[in-house]
Amino acid sequence: MRIGFIGLGRMGVGMAGRLLDAGHTLAVYNRTASRAQALRERGAVVAETPEAAARGAEVVYTMLADDAAVEHVVYAADGALAAMANGAVHVSASTISVALARRLSESHARAGHRFVSAPVFGRPDAAAAGKLYVVAAGAAETIGFVQPLFDAVGQRTYNMGAEPSNANLVKVSGNFMLFAAIEALAESFALIRKAGVDVKAFKDLLTSSLFNAPVYHTYGDLLANGKDDQAGFTVTLALKDVRLAIAAAESLAVPMPAASLAHDAFVTAVARGYENRDQAVLGRVAAENAGVTV
Amino acid sequence: MRIGFIGLGRMGVGMAGRLLDAGHTLAVYNRTASRAQALRERGAVVAETPEAAARGAEVVYTMLADDAAVEHVVYAADGALAAMANGAVHVSASTISVALARRLSESHARAGHRFVSAPVFGRPDAAAAGKLYVVAAGAAETIGFVQPLFDAVGQRTYNMGAEPSNANLVKVSGNFMLFAAIEALAESFALIRKAGVDVKAFKDLLTSSLFNAPVYHTYGDLLANGKDDQAGFTVTLALKDVRLAIAAAESLAVPMPAASLAHDAFVTAVARGYENRDQAVLGRVAAENAGVTV
Amino acid sequence: MRIGFIGLGRMGVGMAGRLLDAGHTLAVYNRTASRAQALRERGAVVAETPEAAARGAEVVYTMLADDAAVEHVVYAADGALAAMANGAVHVSASTISVALARRLSESHARAGHRFVSAPVFGRPDAAAAGKLYVVAAGAAETIGFVQPLFDAVGQRTYNMGAEPSNANLVKVSGNFMLFAAIEALAESFALIRKAGVDVKAFKDLLTSSLFNAPVYHTYGDLLANGKDDQAGFTVTLALKDVRLAIAAAESLAVPMPAASLAHDAFVTAVARGYENRDQAVLGRVAAENAGVTV
Amino acid sequence: MRIGFIGLGRMGVGMAGRLLDAGHTLAVYNRTASRAQALRERGAVVAETPEAAARGAEVVYTMLADDAAVEHVVYAADGALAAMANGAVHVSASTISVALARRLSESHARAGHRFVSAPVFGRPDAAAAGKLYVVAAGAAETIGFVQPLFDAVGQRTYNMGAEPSNANLVKVSGNFMLFAAIEALAESFALIRKAGVDVKAFKDLLTSSLFNAPVYHTYGDLLANGKDDQAGFTVTLALKDVRLAIAAAESLAVPMPAASLAHDAFVTAVARGYENRDQAVLGRVAAENAGVTV
Repeated sequence: MRIGFIGLGRMGVGMAGRLLDAGHTLAVYNRTASRAQALRERGAVVAETPEAAARGAEVVYTMLADDAAVEHVVYAADGALAAMANGAVHVSASTISVALARRLSESHARAGHRFVSAPVFGRPDAAAAGKLYVVAAGAAETIGFVQPLFDAVGQRTYNMGAEPSNANLVKVSGNFMLFAAIEALAESFALIRKAGVDVKAFKDLLTSSLFNAPVYHTYGDLLANGKDDQAGFTVTLALKDVRLAIAAAESLAVPMPAASLAHDAFVTAVARGYENRDQAVLGRVAAENAGVTV
Repeated sequence: MRIGFIGLGRMGVGMAGRLLDAGHTLAVYNRTASRAQALRERGAVVAETPEAAARGAEVVYTMLADDAAVEHVVYAADGALAAMANGAVHVSASTISVALARRLSESHARAGHRFVSAPVFGRPDAAAAGKLYVVAAGAAETIGFVQPLFDAVGQRTYNMGAEPSNANLVKVSGNFMLFAAIEALAESFALIRKAGVDVKAFKDLLTSSLFNAPVYHTYGDLLANGKDDQAGFTVTLALKDVRLAIAAAESLAVPMPAASLAHDAFVTAVARGYENRDQAVLGRVAAENAGVTV
Repeated sequence: MRIGFIGLGRMGVGMAGRLLDAGHTLAVYNRTASRAQALRERGAVVAETPEAAARGAEVVYTMLADDAAVEHVVYAADGALAAMANGAVHVSASTISVALARRLSESHARAGHRFVSAPVFGRPDAAAAGKLYVVAAGAAETIGFVQPLFDAVGQRTYNMGAEPSNANLVKVSGNFMLFAAIEALAESFALIRKAGVDVKAFKDLLTSSLFNAPVYHTYGDLLANGKDDQAGFTVTLALKDVRLAIAAAESLAVPMPAASLAHDAFVTAVARGYENRDQAVLGRVAAENAGVTV
Repeated sequence: MRIGFIGLGRMGVGMAGRLLDAGHTLAVYNRTASRAQALRERGAVVAETPEAAARGAEVVYTMLADDAAVEHVVYAADGALAAMANGAVHVSASTISVALARRLSESHARAGHRFVSAPVFGRPDAAAAGKLYVVAAGAAETIGFVQPLFDAVGQRTYNMGAEPSNANLVKVSGNFMLFAAIEALAESFALIRKAGVDVKAFKDLLTSSLFNAPVYHTYGDLLANGKDDQAGFTVTLALKDVRLAIAAAESLAVPMPAASLAHDAFVTAVARGYENRDQAVLGRVAAENAGVTV
């Protein structure tokens, strides 16, 4: 397929590479053009504007940091919306608000485009390896049409129904689950450490019994070893995502105290200057709160 | 071995059965004697008092509901402490406070006994099937001596070092992890339900990707189906355990806001009359808070 | 002075009445024009648009519900910004975000206007009686110029310095103090009630000793009597304001867990259908959580 | 009256002095006898044991730090219980658990004594000046009998009915109100400081308007000036009291999330080594969490 791929951050660059590997034709756009260099060498055309990336594409695939970035590449004067062909599909993989997903859905419908929300779970290494989990929502036929792209970037696609914004709600809910798990690890590890018990033995207990899941293996290791300096997923992004979860919950009148708690933990991390560290830094924050060294 | 087994609740009866199956000789004691009937038919002697169960035993194995129950069977006039032989081992499997574990350790040392803390993870069905996870702490030699018993009741033993109370700290920390996971499921399921998204699809997404662990399979199913009426682990017990975690953390000066949050959720469950339901009822509590039906 | 007064909700109508009483000339605007009728009878001119209210005014005084409403009356095609005379003053009394206050300050400076943020504390009855507390920030000279207006609507003015948005930060901080006080009353009253102790005796104790302040008298009475049906300050507004506090705190990297707790309490109130009740309904929410009747 | 006064901490020494000033005869007991010296010079007899202080007294007045201390002076072999005369009154002013108040009530009834719970509000300077607020519960006639003592130590007595433990519930509820107010001040002051707004101006606004109450004057000043080194009320005591509130609430199945939050704040204060500072140190803790200097 002819794909306009917009957004070459840590995640996007891996996904675009997978799409190239799968034989698709890519016009890529990134605000900071230098991020596109490696993809150009692998055959991608580098577009100067979102509009140029979108023109002539069957699918516009966006993977950006937040609502503001998505709004810009879609709605700006040189944005994708006006350039997309009739019937073209916008696949939005960014973790954006439920509200913006609704707005995009309406804008594209009015313009004669199709729209699928397809945010992903997984860290940058999973993106580069095509091992993401894709959460898709939109018209069944449209999802079927872009399924080969999901197969290129992901190991499995979960269909959440016809309303695109449902995928975004599921994504922010899943991220909330992740934050809650990390915060729980952070607090229990702080307790275990301060008691002088071996935190790795505790981690091994968890991950070989009831908590034998990737999230506990990954973050259990990162927290046990205090490895929060290589940011697969920064505090800044995590804080944005927990804010999205709280906003979505508030608009549906669902109290989520554990989300508020994660929010406050990430704000504390920022106050300590950890905004660019991996979200695993919650382990450091909890240890510091307990007066114990990681 | 000649074992005095004290405490035949849902967990204890399964564990004692496994010890019988493994060929050990059991004298069992339970406050409500009728619970011992089935074990008598399988060859156990039924003791009238903790003292009688302990007399002549190589190992006294206790599995009781809380600190008060353990204090009673050990320290009462007809308790086990005075009856135990020199060099006999007390294996305490109950989820008790770190403080009581310390006191037991000292009392037994003074009396010439050995002491191992060996609380377990797993629900009653795992106890009956010998599939528990055993967390043991105490003198290495003593743990080695009782290892055959752990092999009978559990699928794996985790050694947490020489200080017995460490096993109790690890146990309450692990239970805290469990409560935090259930509360996170409860909140996200309430959000997903209220948005009209299929909660089972969300559960499938979690449990086939980052959260592919027994705790999410088990409680994901219980919460998705609103099955909280068959209590494997009651709210009353959970509230006790989160209180133990908070007390242990407080005595070490470790703030644990997620534990406080779980505590308040369980208190709310009690206020709604759910004290005898399974701890999975947190899902119902969160759904009610959001004004949505389970 | 010639004043364009925009926003005739419960608070605005009282403030505009006080300005008329003080002898000022008012052109009033409200989206729902019928709210202006009583003021017309007291001598105000009723404007058809914000623009018309602002044209020729020395001071444009706005008292609106939220950021969106203020943005509309200022920036819309028929908004006040374009119509204001050079040197005219915009006094913004609405409880708006710190971010919007900054934007307004810049817009007016660019247009040659002056800008003062002057949000108020007090319920509608205090507005009608000229007993509000005015929190003002902006250029000292400008505040001096509009001081007679503050004297008409308020019993005292607090100057928070030259940066207008400081007044908004102080306002949302003060509202946070209010929410925290109400939530504390709500929880303690639920406990006192469930214990069967006389809640009015407890309220009398508080308000005649350490807590002898208007906020505890007012909300102590409302909560003790379960009077939350006459909304001086609705849950919807309170939820907006606590969101402003959390947003301001987040942008400065200040964790505010008590603000998160109030947020979640208000969301719970909305989930129970209490969005149009007075914020004192937190007392009812806490009592319901405890399973006790108000 | 002949009074046995037990407990000469910061509060007790002031109260005992007031009783001497009012003309009563005192036998005083304190674990650390040196604390009694100044009172001996003012005419008190110094007793060697609680028993000696209680023997022959019409009223035994206890003012101790916690449950353990009260249990000791009442129930120990040389305790007050056995020494008290038939019909003598135990006035318990300590902030103890509702559960212990119930037990004391029963013990004294069985022994033919009378019992009044009469905890107090106020800091040491108020105790020395006879300006405490006394919260009393017990038989009306008994309260009438000891009212002259309350008049000596306090400025007002609040009667909470015939069940003595009600006074203790009210006391821990009132302390909870205090902790919630301090935590709210702590968080808002951190926000105000970090924004660069004058925290004293904010305090003046609060205390001259809706929050014009002693608690906000006292703690507003302490927090604004960072004065937490002279402990009128230590973190250790505050943590004990919030624990009592949470325990009382839990036993009645009343969720109190704001109490949990205060608990966690005090635990954090202990983790930072502030356990012997005044509870006003919550302001320092919140400021540190925000990365701002007090």
